[in-house]
Amino acid sequence: MSERVLITGGAGCIGSELAERLIGLGHRVTVYDNLSSGKEEHLSSLRSSANFSFLRGDLLDFDLLESAVAGQDIVFHLAANPDVKFAPGEATDKDLKQNTICTYQVLEAMRRRGVRRLAFSSTSAVYGLSERQPIPEDNPTRPISLYGATKLSCEAMIGAFQNLFHMDCWIFRFANIVGGRTRKKGGTVVGDFIEKLRQDSSVLHILGDGNQAKSYLLVSECVDAMLFALEAAPTGLQILNLGCDDCLSVRRIADLVVEALGLRNVRYEFGSGSGGWPGDVPRFRLDPSKINRLGWRAHHNSEEAVRQSIQAVLAESLCRS
Amino acid sequence: MSERVLITGGAGCIGSELAERLIGLGHRVTVYDNLSSGKEEHLSSLRSSANFSFLRGDLLDFDLLESAVAGQDIVFHLAANPDVKFAPGEATDKDLKQNTICTYQVLEAMRRRGVRRLAFSSTSAVYGLSERQPIPEDNPTRPISLYGATKLSCEAMIGAFQNLFHMDCWIFRFANIVGGRTRKKGGTVVGDFIEKLRQDSSVLHILGDGNQAKSYLLVSECVDAMLFALEAAPTGLQILNLGCDDCLSVRRIADLVVEALGLRNVRYEFGSGSGGWPGDVPRFRLDPSKINRLGWRAHHNSEEAVRQSIQAVLAESLCRS
Repeated sequence: MSERVLITGGAGCIGSELAERLIGLGHRVTVYDNLSSGKEEHLSSLRSSANFSFLRGDLLDFDLLESAVAGQDIVFHLAANPDVKFAPGEATDKDLKQNTICTYQVLEAMRRRGVRRLAFSSTSAVYGLSERQPIPEDNPTRPISLYGATKLSCEAMIGAFQNLFHMDCWIFRFANIVGGRTRKKGGTVVGDFIEKLRQDSSVLHILGDGNQAKSYLLVSECVDAMLFALEAAPTGLQILNLGCDDCLSVRRIADLVVEALGLRNVRYEFGSGSGGWPGDVPRFRLDPSKINRLGWRAHHNSEEAVRQSIQAVLAESLCRS
Repeated sequence: MSERVLITGGAGCIGSELAERLIGLGHRVTVYDNLSSGKEEHLSSLRSSANFSFLRGDLLDFDLLESAVAGQDIVFHLAANPDVKFAPGEATDKDLKQNTICTYQVLEAMRRRGVRRLAFSSTSAVYGLSERQPIPEDNPTRPISLYGATKLSCEAMIGAFQNLFHMDCWIFRFANIVGGRTRKKGGTVVGDFIEKLRQDSSVLHILGDGNQAKSYLLVSECVDAMLFALEAAPTGLQILNLGCDDCLSVRRIADLVVEALGLRNVRYEFGSGSGGWPGDVPRFRLDPSKINRLGWRAHHNSEEAVRQSIQAVLAESLCRS
């Protein structure tokens, strides 16, 4: 059955791929994006569809948001500050505004308009430094970054609204999502390495000690998993890790990028400390067994996902040149 | 050694008792309170002390807050929306503003002024509906009320600031705190029952089915425990349940109030549903073994705490009449 779907942050890497998929399935999709990090070009293939519309707007503009929410069957709230790194000197309330407060705005607009289904992009960063690996959903959540902390705030508010106003909500705790369209902001490790090696192919500066190891998941599989979960666990509050159960080290990613670029004798220079930046969680593996039990499993492990991501970045930059 | 202490919400039940205790120990105390629920009369015994000062201000007034924070050795951030109940028709952003955003303001003021120690009043409501009882600190946190959700948001931001800016922070997850000065807003069950029975001593209307059962702790013991924890676990991020390990049913509290008032043949009329209000957690017991292992233990169980609270309310209303 055709549904009306609002995607906040729908001009981003994940949102635009989700929009395409939903349009392909016959749904009517509205993308709401302020284009602070999303790009209109991500939506170019959708422009010709009668089932697609784009609304350029900020989530802090409550009236516009409320009008966009009205009449929707479901909201995918993917908009967020995409840059998980906090740099000294930056404002400390960027994540509070763009994550916590914007998510409240979405929830309140939905409540006022009687829209009851919400899918939300959370993050493995809510777990912080966990002794238990891989990390299941009922692990304590002790974020160590402003990004992770404010995403946990969003989760908590979603849980309260879900209970108080009888909503159905899906909280997806993403692994590192790679592949598909390259991010324009909040650069990923793959894009960062390719950029650096193009400027100087003799040396690669790596943040942290190179032993950071994380779970990676392809955008396309992330979209698969979300759509699957909506069908397989259709009511209540669902909190689900989205990822595969392995991880990949930053050093190995460097090797893969060097190999893909056909380089040799690249010298790696490492930073100090176990994390790449303040608030970085150096090592984590997600436990995806909850969504596995529902019947979904990633087809690509972390290394395969990163390999595909490298190819996608190289292909995109070839197109541009 | 004498320290300079800022207490936000210091004109409230807990804050004013903490202020008295700290002044008694020789510290210099500034109470910061907008008197939205706190009362100046709670501070009357402190007015004569040279070590005490009161600043009437709102935490949303960042400049005033920053000037109050400057030069402090530690901040006790107790200010919050005291009313845990959400009533249909109320604004849904009350807790977001008064808990989440105000706590961010405190953290940011501390960061800017280089004040590195923060003690925070969180709540057992962060746990939500837990299968595991009694509930230890590493339990999943799934709040079902806006109050609980925004307190969890505060906890998460405190954790991020603690990590990024090398602070020492104590997050105290309070049981229901009773006794001492009666709350003027966000009424407790004891005050509610006494008030109702004074109006009509033949019948008592009880919210929910009366089987709600919660952990109670005396204000004086709550203050003891916080001061103990600061000494016993002086660094890093400390998350501690504060309470005893038993609980007390609402029906039993009704019996205790009826007994204390010398009434007989009071008919109880129960509401419907297991919770007293939307977002109420009907039953919980806190596991205090973490602070017990540090060396602190409540001297009064939940029933004794509630009995003392009843006597305190009756004594206070006698003084007034």
